[in-house]
Amino acid sequence: MAEPGFTGAGLDRADHLRLDEQELAVLRLHAEARLLSLAELDPVLDDSGALAWSALAGEDEGTIFLGLEDGAPRFAPLIRTTALGQRAWGVFRLLASMSPKDAAIWAAARSLNEWHNRHVYCGVCGTETRSFRAGWGRLCPKCGMEHFPRVDPVVIMLAEHGDRVLVARGPGYPPRRYSALSGFVEPAESIEEAVARELMEEAGIAVSDVRYVASQPWPFPGSLMIACLARAGSDTLTLDTNELEDAIWVDRAGVEAALAAEPDAPFQAPPPFAIANTLLTRWIEADIEGGRR
Amino acid sequence: MAEPGFTGAGLDRADHLRLDEQELAVLRLHAEARLLSLAELDPVLDDSGALAWSALAGEDEGTIFLGLEDGAPRFAPLIRTTALGQRAWGVFRLLASMSPKDAAIWAAARSLNEWHNRHVYCGVCGTETRSFRAGWGRLCPKCGMEHFPRVDPVVIMLAEHGDRVLVARGPGYPPRRYSALSGFVEPAESIEEAVARELMEEAGIAVSDVRYVASQPWPFPGSLMIACLARAGSDTLTLDTNELEDAIWVDRAGVEAALAAEPDAPFQAPPPFAIANTLLTRWIEADIEGGRR
Repeated sequence: MAEPGFTGAGLDRADHLRLDEQELAVLRLHAEARLLSLAELDPVLDDSGALAWSALAGEDEGTIFLGLEDGAPRFAPLIRTTALGQRAWGVFRLLASMSPKDAAIWAAARSLNEWHNRHVYCGVCGTETRSFRAGWGRLCPKCGMEHFPRVDPVVIMLAEHGDRVLVARGPGYPPRRYSALSGFVEPAESIEEAVARELMEEAGIAVSDVRYVASQPWPFPGSLMIACLARAGSDTLTLDTNELEDAIWVDRAGVEAALAAEPDAPFQAPPPFAIANTLLTRWIEADIEGGRR
Repeated sequence: MAEPGFTGAGLDRADHLRLDEQELAVLRLHAEARLLSLAELDPVLDDSGALAWSALAGEDEGTIFLGLEDGAPRFAPLIRTTALGQRAWGVFRLLASMSPKDAAIWAAARSLNEWHNRHVYCGVCGTETRSFRAGWGRLCPKCGMEHFPRVDPVVIMLAEHGDRVLVARGPGYPPRRYSALSGFVEPAESIEEAVARELMEEAGIAVSDVRYVASQPWPFPGSLMIACLARAGSDTLTLDTNELEDAIWVDRAGVEAALAAEPDAPFQAPPPFAIANTLLTRWIEADIEGGRR
């Protein structure tokens, strides 16, 4: 079964060390300590196509402690940038060539850096904060408020109707690209309620029987993608044209053709590291396992 | 099947109206427009035990538009408070008497108010922000950054070993109360990875076969609780005593006794509006459905 992208970093995050300044100082001097190379917030690959790392200058405290890889400490730089929230189609080409493990490690560095840059000042009192917990928090020196990295849960889902599922394209998508519908989970709603609300808002369809399928982190800038299936009561669409350019119902043969990147497929599937791809794949696989074909 | 607490508000959130100042002004003057009563951020109940509402002064813009209830607009006040992040055991007594619908409506008002109070100042530039999108965002007048309500995904899970599940108690719990283990999902990890990490960090057990069960919003202050089961490789525990006072493996008879609040139950179950209760209930129910008994 295909694992979702940006998972499988394989690092021990060693949360218990994050507040241990003494131990962190030792780790920074560790012979195998390494600092992730970044170009702004984008990945840098070495000649073999793997993430590039450099030796760590022991004294540098402006870093994020990513964790331990077989006992060897891994850090990422803390970078001040104004290039926030970029959709990063360019990075998608790099990601297509990266190992899942490397993509997952880079995702932590990117998400945390985005978060630091969006939370320079304390939301409670307006004072400039500083990184603490080895980059996994920011502390206000004035009011004492501790701020923790933000992760935005997003539902991403396929509505099913008979033998078909609904895929859609938004403004700015690559040509012929369609994907699963998605939207942020709001305060005071469950995953199941968010799935139903988004499908009603964006496509005008009522759904029932929401089923969780898989999840992945998505570092643009820091989402938790929660992939689901839902049963549509009707296939009549009323599109929110501010959000969607088009939406189509696709049958199994069409989804299989898209996943196989066949030239006459009804649409171009999202890349393998996007959970929409995993979701389409699992929908096909579950059907095969379920013996419906 | 028991629905998780804080779900089923039954309001149309009418997202498309949030930026429509003209329509919002009309809604504030609607004959059936109502403003939720709050005591600081706590619920206020009327004589019948339902949420108390008052008529809306049409000119008041310091409100959150919660949505439409059968076409009637529902608002909550925006309250400045320094009483943030209270664990609110007192509120739990009120919640036990409230309908799921009322609890869900109040949860939105509380979560959004907590968020506003924690994000008075722009994290990017430190300027005081103002509420926009009818209370579903804050806008920085200086740098133009739009800030959206924060929802923190939290995994809450039962590790299974043989016929038993693991429940634990933290510092400050009521006497005999045990619950499922839980922890925040961090940047760059999936739900499944967060479940495995938290069970290793807090209880020292390695798990596989993580399965999603249900979700609920949790308004203390604004979490999305994601309830899962996971298969433990061993029942040997190594507790993180900073997080947990105690943890015990409980068999089916013990869980059933706890859910039935029997006096000789091995622990006191969490309240029905907490998803840990739903999770324990579903674990028992699934077993009955699965025909294991």
